[in-house]
Amino acid sequence: MARFLKDRTKTQGAAPGSLIFIGQQKIARRTVRVIQYSTDSVKESAPDSVDKIRACVADGHITWVNIAGLHDTEFIARLGKAFNVSPLILEDIVNTDQRPRFSEETEHLHVIAKAFRVSDGDYKVQMEQISIIVGEHYLLTFQESDNDRFDDVRKRIREGKTRIRSFGPDYLCYALLDTLVDSYILNLEKLGAAIEEEGKKIFAAETNTIKEIYHFKTELSYIRKNVRPFKEITTRFLNCDSPIVNSRTYTYLRDLDDLVLQAQEAIEIYYTMVSDQINMFQTNVSNKSNDVMKVLTIFSTIFIPLTFIAGIYGMNFDHMPELHYRPAYFILWGVMALVTAAMLLFFKRKKWL
Amino acid sequence: MARFLKDRTKTQGAAPGSLIFIGQQKIARRTVRVIQYSTDSVKESAPDSVDKIRACVADGHITWVNIAGLHDTEFIARLGKAFNVSPLILEDIVNTDQRPRFSEETEHLHVIAKAFRVSDGDYKVQMEQISIIVGEHYLLTFQESDNDRFDDVRKRIREGKTRIRSFGPDYLCYALLDTLVDSYILNLEKLGAAIEEEGKKIFAAETNTIKEIYHFKTELSYIRKNVRPFKEITTRFLNCDSPIVNSRTYTYLRDLDDLVLQAQEAIEIYYTMVSDQINMFQTNVSNKSNDVMKVLTIFSTIFIPLTFIAGIYGMNFDHMPELHYRPAYFILWGVMALVTAAMLLFFKRKKWL
Amino acid sequence: MARFLKDRTKTQGAAPGSLIFIGQQKIARRTVRVIQYSTDSVKESAPDSVDKIRACVADGHITWVNIAGLHDTEFIARLGKAFNVSPLILEDIVNTDQRPRFSEETEHLHVIAKAFRVSDGDYKVQMEQISIIVGEHYLLTFQESDNDRFDDVRKRIREGKTRIRSFGPDYLCYALLDTLVDSYILNLEKLGAAIEEEGKKIFAAETNTIKEIYHFKTELSYIRKNVRPFKEITTRFLNCDSPIVNSRTYTYLRDLDDLVLQAQEAIEIYYTMVSDQINMFQTNVSNKSNDVMKVLTIFSTIFIPLTFIAGIYGMNFDHMPELHYRPAYFILWGVMALVTAAMLLFFKRKKWL
Amino acid sequence: MARFLKDRTKTQGAAPGSLIFIGQQKIARRTVRVIQYSTDSVKESAPDSVDKIRACVADGHITWVNIAGLHDTEFIARLGKAFNVSPLILEDIVNTDQRPRFSEETEHLHVIAKAFRVSDGDYKVQMEQISIIVGEHYLLTFQESDNDRFDDVRKRIREGKTRIRSFGPDYLCYALLDTLVDSYILNLEKLGAAIEEEGKKIFAAETNTIKEIYHFKTELSYIRKNVRPFKEITTRFLNCDSPIVNSRTYTYLRDLDDLVLQAQEAIEIYYTMVSDQINMFQTNVSNKSNDVMKVLTIFSTIFIPLTFIAGIYGMNFDHMPELHYRPAYFILWGVMALVTAAMLLFFKRKKWL
Amino acid sequence: MARFLKDRTKTQGAAPGSLIFIGQQKIARRTVRVIQYSTDSVKESAPDSVDKIRACVADGHITWVNIAGLHDTEFIARLGKAFNVSPLILEDIVNTDQRPRFSEETEHLHVIAKAFRVSDGDYKVQMEQISIIVGEHYLLTFQESDNDRFDDVRKRIREGKTRIRSFGPDYLCYALLDTLVDSYILNLEKLGAAIEEEGKKIFAAETNTIKEIYHFKTELSYIRKNVRPFKEITTRFLNCDSPIVNSRTYTYLRDLDDLVLQAQEAIEIYYTMVSDQINMFQTNVSNKSNDVMKVLTIFSTIFIPLTFIAGIYGMNFDHMPELHYRPAYFILWGVMALVTAAMLLFFKRKKWL
Repeated sequence: MARFLKDRTKTQGAAPGSLIFIGQQKIARRTVRVIQYSTDSVKESAPDSVDKIRACVADGHITWVNIAGLHDTEFIARLGKAFNVSPLILEDIVNTDQRPRFSEETEHLHVIAKAFRVSDGDYKVQMEQISIIVGEHYLLTFQESDNDRFDDVRKRIREGKTRIRSFGPDYLCYALLDTLVDSYILNLEKLGAAIEEEGKKIFAAETNTIKEIYHFKTELSYIRKNVRPFKEITTRFLNCDSPIVNSRTYTYLRDLDDLVLQAQEAIEIYYTMVSDQINMFQTNVSNKSNDVMKVLTIFSTIFIPLTFIAGIYGMNFDHMPELHYRPAYFILWGVMALVTAAMLLFFKRKKWL
Repeated sequence: MARFLKDRTKTQGAAPGSLIFIGQQKIARRTVRVIQYSTDSVKESAPDSVDKIRACVADGHITWVNIAGLHDTEFIARLGKAFNVSPLILEDIVNTDQRPRFSEETEHLHVIAKAFRVSDGDYKVQMEQISIIVGEHYLLTFQESDNDRFDDVRKRIREGKTRIRSFGPDYLCYALLDTLVDSYILNLEKLGAAIEEEGKKIFAAETNTIKEIYHFKTELSYIRKNVRPFKEITTRFLNCDSPIVNSRTYTYLRDLDDLVLQAQEAIEIYYTMVSDQINMFQTNVSNKSNDVMKVLTIFSTIFIPLTFIAGIYGMNFDHMPELHYRPAYFILWGVMALVTAAMLLFFKRKKWL
Repeated sequence: MARFLKDRTKTQGAAPGSLIFIGQQKIARRTVRVIQYSTDSVKESAPDSVDKIRACVADGHITWVNIAGLHDTEFIARLGKAFNVSPLILEDIVNTDQRPRFSEETEHLHVIAKAFRVSDGDYKVQMEQISIIVGEHYLLTFQESDNDRFDDVRKRIREGKTRIRSFGPDYLCYALLDTLVDSYILNLEKLGAAIEEEGKKIFAAETNTIKEIYHFKTELSYIRKNVRPFKEITTRFLNCDSPIVNSRTYTYLRDLDDLVLQAQEAIEIYYTMVSDQINMFQTNVSNKSNDVMKVLTIFSTIFIPLTFIAGIYGMNFDHMPELHYRPAYFILWGVMALVTAAMLLFFKRKKWL
Repeated sequence: MARFLKDRTKTQGAAPGSLIFIGQQKIARRTVRVIQYSTDSVKESAPDSVDKIRACVADGHITWVNIAGLHDTEFIARLGKAFNVSPLILEDIVNTDQRPRFSEETEHLHVIAKAFRVSDGDYKVQMEQISIIVGEHYLLTFQESDNDRFDDVRKRIREGKTRIRSFGPDYLCYALLDTLVDSYILNLEKLGAAIEEEGKKIFAAETNTIKEIYHFKTELSYIRKNVRPFKEITTRFLNCDSPIVNSRTYTYLRDLDDLVLQAQEAIEIYYTMVSDQINMFQTNVSNKSNDVMKVLTIFSTIFIPLTFIAGIYGMNFDHMPELHYRPAYFILWGVMALVTAAMLLFFKRKKWL
Repeated sequence: MARFLKDRTKTQGAAPGSLIFIGQQKIARRTVRVIQYSTDSVKESAPDSVDKIRACVADGHITWVNIAGLHDTEFIARLGKAFNVSPLILEDIVNTDQRPRFSEETEHLHVIAKAFRVSDGDYKVQMEQISIIVGEHYLLTFQESDNDRFDDVRKRIREGKTRIRSFGPDYLCYALLDTLVDSYILNLEKLGAAIEEEGKKIFAAETNTIKEIYHFKTELSYIRKNVRPFKEITTRFLNCDSPIVNSRTYTYLRDLDDLVLQAQEAIEIYYTMVSDQINMFQTNVSNKSNDVMKVLTIFSTIFIPLTFIAGIYGMNFDHMPELHYRPAYFILWGVMALVTAAMLLFFKRKKWL
């Protein structure tokens, strides 16, 4: 199966707006977590039906509904209807191969983004699609699996020390995106450290090194594909004039925009670095081959003439005058020493020794 | 014959607006399929003359006329006249080497696009030109061959469950283009899976692998050439203010625009991937050569001095004192063992072993 | 002499507007051909003086004057004066190393373009500068040699079947440019077919192939240099609001613009293809070297130890017990067979066999 | 640890605006230096509390406060509060991994820039973050360590000969940035001289050379990453219409803008040069390998046949007629001389000698 | 010393506007040449003080003052003061490492450009900075050395045949810049001819060729760095609305703009050509190595087995039945011939022969 484009045969021929889950199911059953907060209070719950979720949203707090697990498309369809979300957007939420993007609807802002995690031993990138729908008093997040990605934000809401409780869902959306981009940079730092580490090994020119470097390059391409469009999200978020976005939030969005730029520059720098490493590796392999060849050539060109001389006097001709000359054997050793010295001088001059 | 540019010697010297079919005839005889629909009813027919087609269009339904086979240029000229299509556009319909594009005429919208299919065994790309003319109550499609490309759309029209029956020919045009781009992504997914699969073989550095990879690169260039201008189609479609385009359709067009972008990014990513694979292959070949050379050098440099020593004592000089010294032969074995050990140590140090 | 920039030592120190012919004289004597036409009639003549040309232009028809041969700068200076053409433009007409461009003067439009032809056997590109001056009722063309480049246009004027006779000199200018771009595509198709053909040979990695490919790359660079600025011509032509350009002509110019784009994309695609071929060729050479080396290594590493063993028992020591052991010789053959088998197994494992 | 992205695990999960120092502490204790000046007088002091600093600023002079050492985040938080600096900006000051940027606040201009120094022996780049806050009558600078970077500016203030004393803090900010960019060019000149010097060694193709060149490339990437965004600073500085910036300063800023451009072009040129050197090095290694191989081939192909002939007449067959033919040995020497001559001729023709 | 960036240690710490000469002094003493002209008359002189120069300018002619030699910074400072030139501009005139640029001051236009000359034998580029200050009735030029660069312009002024005498200093400035760009193209033609000539040698793959090509690449980078910003000069000149520029001059400036574009395209084309040549050279080296290896392999693999066979029958075992079989020796020759034939067939099949 291709990794850069997911298999879409299931969606073939479906009308636009059909809800078909694409991707691997990463969780056994869908879970719903709701957090409701205002400047004064925080409530958490786990409602199990669309009606109960609807009820939470209606009670005056700011409500954040987190849905983990996207395979239950029917549930998502009902939820979408309850919140008046357009079918085209619902389709994108469950089709987990979407490009990151920001779109402004009449009642909502809609964000599709990617979260990724670089695994520890083998530096493999795990990608997950995160969809966010921002309404006037609520925010819905859709994740493929139930994880601790947004726990820091929850903690900040619960503790209530920071400004998050006094802002609206637009700031919550910013906080979630900020958490994502922060995690991009953390994970890039991890991958980058590995790349810089690997770079020190390229002069040894071992086969494993090149495999690692190539692996890093593929992973970086994969990250780049999914992170690059994030810049469009922040740009459009900054330029949207929806009443949902409070003017106080713009300062934070500009900060986020800068962070995204930094993440992207890091990706480009590591990508260039990896390309350079591959190029350098190749140079080193050539260099090594050259060394090997020199050793072969030096040994061969010294001993081949000597062996030839020995071969001559190993011949069995009846009439070979040198054979009967008493000091001949010792003279021969002398000749051989001379030949060897000449060859060594020759290599010295060529700077091979 | 060149594949990236079709032979145009037939059009040489022809005045602009002359109808000359360029390309291979892919179908024995032209076929015409008409589908007429409104919110309530669907009619299908296969009229065999321009007058009958004209009659269909006049009866109050939305009428989709599909012409398969473009070699009968005279028929297309008459049809064009009946629908008031400019000769320059008719010329482009039969000249199947046109760049994809969108143009807005007084009475029509005109789209030229490409459909392609990646064949199964050998991953060859088959390209076909699709032309669409959108009028106020009708839509004409021109294909090079009669195939099932748009059957899913026909099915949706027949079944009438989705919104297609309640929208105009502008939405039908969108639906057809959406089907094309969906098929781009499906076929790219197929090609991409093959490319990613091939990528796993590059460390073996076998000749067949490089042939395959080069083939993929050529096919991707071919796809890119024909898909890249599609972005201009969606952009111009979105920006055109023809009365033919209903404002409700824009949401769908924006979705299509995003899909095209995704297809293009996929092409670029696979193109880069294939370039990297070629580069990596080359590195691996160098690496293998290096290994081969090491084996040769180790063997040669160990045995060449030994053979020389053996050669020395194979000489037939009358006076060679060592020959008559009883333990000489065994001492020689010792010397040879020492030389070998020294060489092995040398290679060990150089990390060749 | 440089081909990409012509020798300009002759113009050194000359004041701007000096008429100095640069390039090779391609024709023995200058020829002038005049075609005059209106909706009803066509007249052809070959006047030999500036006055006669002036007279032709004055008689109410649309007049196309074609001058072949630019070395007679004095004639061109007089002609320029008669038609009120600025000296800077005349300078550019005879300096055949100009960049293609479109400029709008008070009384004229002025176009400099390049025509090229790919020769048959050796695929060499011959470039020629074409200058066009479009006035209100006349059009002047300047060519370096007298050839059949525009004969198709003349034929269409004579036959009078197409719209050319009812349009003005702006359409004639379009028709000439269209003929040029058509010939670009035809010649690119020719070169492209040769390139694609050559591409099939790269896996054989023969020296001739790389020479051919490199030749194609140079020719493509040369074409690109001269064709790339053509896009500016069509863009400026489309944007100029000179009274000389009839609004009916714009539709045709837009078509031409698209054709130029197609020619440029073809150049880029073939350029990339040739670059890929060179890269691929290099990979194949490395691959072949690897194969050669494997053969050498296999033979050497099998026979070198065997030869050493044979050398041992060719020594003449008085005391070598094995020599007198009767089955020793046959045992030795056995040992050698074992060594060979071991080596073959070793190569089998390394996948060199 | 990655060098291109600093480890941010400490900031993980922190709310935006939290002050967390990132980077290595480069100084034992924070130092504060204050210089106050007007057209007539200069005062210098080293206040040790926020209140004293506040007091300095209030006394009618232009006050420049330089803080060296950023690990004392609490002090910076208090200072920030005293000067009404937004927490997001304070966060960026202590997080020393920020992209260079210019931002305009209600009361301040805020600049983040990088200073770097190329070390002498090993050409390693040391990067330091410099933050500047420009208020109406004061300017704050934040450095990671206490160094002589801005001593030239201090000297000019003390001497009072130049225009610096009669301008405001906006000009002081320009002077500091100008000092930074001047030092960029000085350090690039140093690195560039080393690169150009190394370039002369590439034809010797020694392993150390490639290591050096690769080192230079990495350092240049690192510089580029930190200098490239500087252009945005000057552009935004020029376009800001804050009352803090006096119109007289714009001429100087335009000059600075040009200097930044020159620094960036120098980086690009050296980057290209280093890439070319790597490429050229690789070509030279191949060239050397080719030479080594030629020597091996010439020696081997001359002596291998000769040794074979000697081997033939070393055989012990009872019946070998040549052995008993008296002049055979001398004839054999002749044959060998002929073979050698033939081989030499062959190599001569191949231009290997 | 770095060539791409001149050593600026002398300017370190200097205030903006300080006049410090950077570069090599190319002339023993400064010379001043003044030419004064109007439609009717021409006067030439060589005043030796700022006052005399000032006096020349005041007398109603158009006055062109040419200063050669920039090391006398004090003189330039006084001259600048006399003509009201800003210190920042004077600083740039004597700092000969400036980027080419055009700036518009209240009383002057100011141009910094580069002149270069490709030396004959070794194709080294000599660069010189030319500064021009255009006032209402005068023009100042600053050169590093006293040469014949502008003699053609002087000649045209003296002869008075062309339009130069009837135009103002703006046209003179254009004429000087035109002379510079003409010389760019002439020198590029020279370098280009050498590059194209060198290109014919790359298939021989000799070490000198690659050195030459690399030299050309460096020189082209150097030219590019100094010529590329010239386009900004013509663009800004065309867009400036200073009263100093007469509207009649714009036609000429547009022509110049085109010439600059041609020079830049030539640089890019030759740069690409040189890069291709390096790449091609590398391919040819690999190809040659392959040929060398084939010769080695063919010889070795034929003779190594034969030598082994000869070795076998050179052994001294008491019991070797073949030795006593009378026709054995001749049979052996047959076997050897067979082995050789088999090997040759093998190589034939592999297409190595």
